[in-house]
Amino acid sequence: MQIGFIGLGIMGLPMAGHLKAAGHAICVPDRASLSADSRAAFTVLADATAVARAADVIILMVPDTPDVEAVLFGPAGVAAGLSPGKLVIDMSSISPTATKDFAARITALGCAYLDAPVSGGEVGAKQASLTIMVGGEEADFARAKPLFEAMGKNITLVGGSGAGQTAKVANQIIVALTIEAVAEALLFASKAGADPAKVRQAITGGLATSRILELHGERMIKRTFAPGFRIVLHQKDLNLALQAGKELGVALPNTAATQQLFAAAIAAGHGGLDHSGLVRALETMAAHKVAPDPE
Amino acid sequence: MQIGFIGLGIMGLPMAGHLKAAGHAICVPDRASLSADSRAAFTVLADATAVARAADVIILMVPDTPDVEAVLFGPAGVAAGLSPGKLVIDMSSISPTATKDFAARITALGCAYLDAPVSGGEVGAKQASLTIMVGGEEADFARAKPLFEAMGKNITLVGGSGAGQTAKVANQIIVALTIEAVAEALLFASKAGADPAKVRQAITGGLATSRILELHGERMIKRTFAPGFRIVLHQKDLNLALQAGKELGVALPNTAATQQLFAAAIAAGHGGLDHSGLVRALETMAAHKVAPDPE
Repeated sequence: MQIGFIGLGIMGLPMAGHLKAAGHAICVPDRASLSADSRAAFTVLADATAVARAADVIILMVPDTPDVEAVLFGPAGVAAGLSPGKLVIDMSSISPTATKDFAARITALGCAYLDAPVSGGEVGAKQASLTIMVGGEEADFARAKPLFEAMGKNITLVGGSGAGQTAKVANQIIVALTIEAVAEALLFASKAGADPAKVRQAITGGLATSRILELHGERMIKRTFAPGFRIVLHQKDLNLALQAGKELGVALPNTAATQQLFAAAIAAGHGGLDHSGLVRALETMAAHKVAPDPE
Repeated sequence: MQIGFIGLGIMGLPMAGHLKAAGHAICVPDRASLSADSRAAFTVLADATAVARAADVIILMVPDTPDVEAVLFGPAGVAAGLSPGKLVIDMSSISPTATKDFAARITALGCAYLDAPVSGGEVGAKQASLTIMVGGEEADFARAKPLFEAMGKNITLVGGSGAGQTAKVANQIIVALTIEAVAEALLFASKAGADPAKVRQAITGGLATSRILELHGERMIKRTFAPGFRIVLHQKDLNLALQAGKELGVALPNTAATQQLFAAAIAAGHGGLDHSGLVRALETMAAHKVAPDPE
């Protein structure tokens, strides 16, 4: 299949590589930042319009909502090159409400649209083990499924247009707030004079059990804050949640508070740390650390 | 061994039964509320002082910090009946800071003291599968371990006096805040028009994975709020966390917000619901439910 891939970043590059390895021809829009390796691996076309003209399926993996809008509908964008029957798949993590609008505008051109954000990060992208959360029509999902299976493992059609982005936002809310919960608990325990590693061990196996307690709890205790998933990116995701929450009329009190803690961490220069580094914002407020930093 | 057991409530009664089944003689203080079954199963003595005189090990399983203080040091209390060498084990969930004081006063009498709160609820108590988090001296822990093994499974000496209660508070913080996280995420998803059950399925397996997403997430979607662990009790535990946090000088912003949501749920008459019913407080604020209640 002819696939257009727009956004060869940390995530997009290995994802496009897996699609190529699965036997597809990949075309990409020209950009000054394209590496020699990418120029050798993929067909480079003038712009996103040319990519949309050449490809059957156009996949987007770009940073944020305005980037998707610009790539789709901006000058030399995807929409100008579409013809009926083509499929646009946005795998970026963006606003669920804006997604519904983008999907409507693309389907009005006689094309299909899926939102299919992922979780699993750089490791998941490289290992083709991403979780993929999809919104759109069943038939379009069936058409895209072999492509998703080349890039990920846990692939779910959540619902109609926007439902993939909604699931991704829900995921990011839970992940951030669970990190914050583990951070409060371990900081409390440490300040009370207990060994946070022993506390973590004592409560693992019960109702407090989570992937976050296992992975991020250990990072807070061992002070290993190399990303991983950066605080600045997770703050972006909580901004999406709060913006969509505002549009929908849903109060998200702990999401709001946690977004503020991410802001405090960024203000203190920790935006490039793994999101487990959120604990540093709480540590500043307590004048105490879960465990000492290494020299 | 002669064991005194004080507090034959929902938790204490099956726990004392397991100790009896393990071959120990159990004595309890007389109370008007003692059932005929309990009077037949256990040796009933006049009061806690008499129990402390008769027993080698005295176990407490009562509701709150003031109850432990009254049982230990009040009129006809445990302290009046102690003699050197006896072991007092408080398995109630109470203040970590008050616990250090109680332990100091008991050890000043030549006795040993362990704090050993549990998690796992009524089911864990009945099935002898409780998680037991212990604070105290290693030798006293070794002496008590066969008794703990009759009542629980995951048994950890966390640290010195109070460390068991500290771990329990940490556990209750994580459990409450993870419930709140799952509630915000599922409510957001539902209000955005997605099927919360599909969203939960799509994100299970990734970083959002937790025992709470599995169990309490399902309860929020299926509207099964029969306890379980009651909101009023979990609010008590968060009060403990905030009180101890205040004494220690640790800010716990999401614990505070979540305690307020429990308060809102209680004000609305939901204090007797399972703690997953916390979602009702958020639902009121959004004028929307994760899923409709059954007729």
